[in-house]
Amino acid sequence: MTKEVVVALDAMGSDRGPSVVVEGAVRFFKKCSSDVTNNVSIILTGDRDCLAQYLSKFSGTKYPISIVHASQIITMNDAPAQVLREKRDSSMAVMANLQKEGKAHAMVSPGNTGAMMAASMFALGRIKGIPRPALAGTFPSMNNPTTILDVGANVGCKAEQLVQFAIMGDAYARGVFNIEKPRVALLNVGAERSKGSELIQDVYKRLEETHLNFIGNIEGDGILKGESDVVICDGFTGNAVLKTFESIAELVGGTLYSEMKRHWSSRAGYLLMRHSFAKLWERLDSAEYGGVPLLGLKGTTIVAHGSASPKAIKNAIVAACDCYRGDVAEKIQERISGVDRLEDRGRSE
Amino acid sequence: MTKEVVVALDAMGSDRGPSVVVEGAVRFFKKCSSDVTNNVSIILTGDRDCLAQYLSKFSGTKYPISIVHASQIITMNDAPAQVLREKRDSSMAVMANLQKEGKAHAMVSPGNTGAMMAASMFALGRIKGIPRPALAGTFPSMNNPTTILDVGANVGCKAEQLVQFAIMGDAYARGVFNIEKPRVALLNVGAERSKGSELIQDVYKRLEETHLNFIGNIEGDGILKGESDVVICDGFTGNAVLKTFESIAELVGGTLYSEMKRHWSSRAGYLLMRHSFAKLWERLDSAEYGGVPLLGLKGTTIVAHGSASPKAIKNAIVAACDCYRGDVAEKIQERISGVDRLEDRGRSE
Repeated sequence: MTKEVVVALDAMGSDRGPSVVVEGAVRFFKKCSSDVTNNVSIILTGDRDCLAQYLSKFSGTKYPISIVHASQIITMNDAPAQVLREKRDSSMAVMANLQKEGKAHAMVSPGNTGAMMAASMFALGRIKGIPRPALAGTFPSMNNPTTILDVGANVGCKAEQLVQFAIMGDAYARGVFNIEKPRVALLNVGAERSKGSELIQDVYKRLEETHLNFIGNIEGDGILKGESDVVICDGFTGNAVLKTFESIAELVGGTLYSEMKRHWSSRAGYLLMRHSFAKLWERLDSAEYGGVPLLGLKGTTIVAHGSASPKAIKNAIVAACDCYRGDVAEKIQERISGVDRLEDRGRSE
Repeated sequence: MTKEVVVALDAMGSDRGPSVVVEGAVRFFKKCSSDVTNNVSIILTGDRDCLAQYLSKFSGTKYPISIVHASQIITMNDAPAQVLREKRDSSMAVMANLQKEGKAHAMVSPGNTGAMMAASMFALGRIKGIPRPALAGTFPSMNNPTTILDVGANVGCKAEQLVQFAIMGDAYARGVFNIEKPRVALLNVGAERSKGSELIQDVYKRLEETHLNFIGNIEGDGILKGESDVVICDGFTGNAVLKTFESIAELVGGTLYSEMKRHWSSRAGYLLMRHSFAKLWERLDSAEYGGVPLLGLKGTTIVAHGSASPKAIKNAIVAACDCYRGDVAEKIQERISGVDRLEDRGRSE
């Protein structure tokens, strides 16, 4: 029997309104294979009447989807602290509470990322030894998916944080992508260990001292080539790289589309190539990954894009199940406490 | 009559040996239109006999390409200071000297970037008010090319440096891409002015006070969408974004190629779409831009990839001509001294 997962879903957080989120939840059961959906149930949080209406509109009432009412909504402009203090009955706070009380195992929100971080830290607590959680993005490389973190939760990072990212990325790649010994690399401006700022050179040395499978520096072009399974960088750089990648499909599609308008033969060619293009669009489509996990918490949080499509919401729910079933939080905890023990020993010697 | 340009070319600096560089120089005259090649001559620096041999092999003797002998070579492992102290007769030092003495107007090298920076600063001198030059990369966006700087010369940057990058990028976009009032944007993790580190927020304020057409923050996905003409960021982030982009063609091509092996109809489709693909590959091919200018110098320096193809070398020579003919260095000087005057006035008030 597959491990049970109850996913709490913030149905009011999307820029595109609750209908998209409900449709995503229904699509999860409609489109995913039974290996994935088996023993999964979803709790939507938000306006009861509104959500019930959409659930019936998308023929979702036959699936294990329930609703827990919440009377408020966190907007993109709300300060993160607001979710804790002033909007305790928001769909986001109610969702976080469900996991806190053990009524849900994981949560997904397409809402305000800062507020999600605050709500997650408050409801779930941080893993000891990790002062700030990180967002882990996934890139399709030529072979395995590549996990890159941080992609935006921490714009400036200290050396010890970057080492924590490595430990978290390693746990994620093992738990979710079943890679036995993930290759961990440090993003840098060159391959040589003498490259980059003093901070980066310091992180290089620290990573060598861990038990991780650290393979050294990687340059930007190595990410998509799949030269490593986990890439470590600060959240400012990771965010820029991830978002640049997300716009590639538009550039490729837009270029081909405007050329096809000029050449009739290209239009015919596109029809013949449609199977190959389907694979390409799947690889370039950021909705395939749906959402990014916020790692370093005693629980499972997935942050989806504010403008996530129903397909992206569906895939964010898959990510939540994978993360919870892959025991990612437990794997991080084990490794981090290992580091703690090493450090304590160092101090007492 | 088009302005005369003598381009000095470091023929020994390539990872792929001198033949590729000589072939690139010949290709410049063979492939470029007469608007570009008119009144251009090239001086190759390096081993006289070796270069003469390649020049005749590629039927380049009929073009205005001459050779100036240099007996040493700077390798990728040489420390930047070495080019100045120990290898004064290297192809790179001899090339830099030609511009210093006014025998060349611009220079191009596929060699060691750090050494090129040292050689350029020594031979040409910095523009007053710019302590460190920056590398400006170019992205193909859906509309105009987008200039992004810095892409690797400065891994950590202060606020005043990022403002200098904006002034240099503006001058480059005006001089080379003939954009009258380039839109300048600051790379950040969100559009709102409150986003990013304190440093980035400080730069935002400073950019508002300049005479530039500053349009605010841009996120990674805005670069390829062409939301601005100039994008400002530190060299670490710019390098990662540029290199990630450079590997896209491989991901797209590799995905389609492996799919085409499975579907015969796709192979037929590819033939029909070849004109459209030619446009796509041109847009994704980093060799189209050939090299990146090192801005902030009293002269013209283009740094090409160590593994640059003959096509990339050809395009780096085009970039050198464009930069020199577009008076980029003069345009930077004008704007920077304008800022100086403003600051002086501020101080005396």
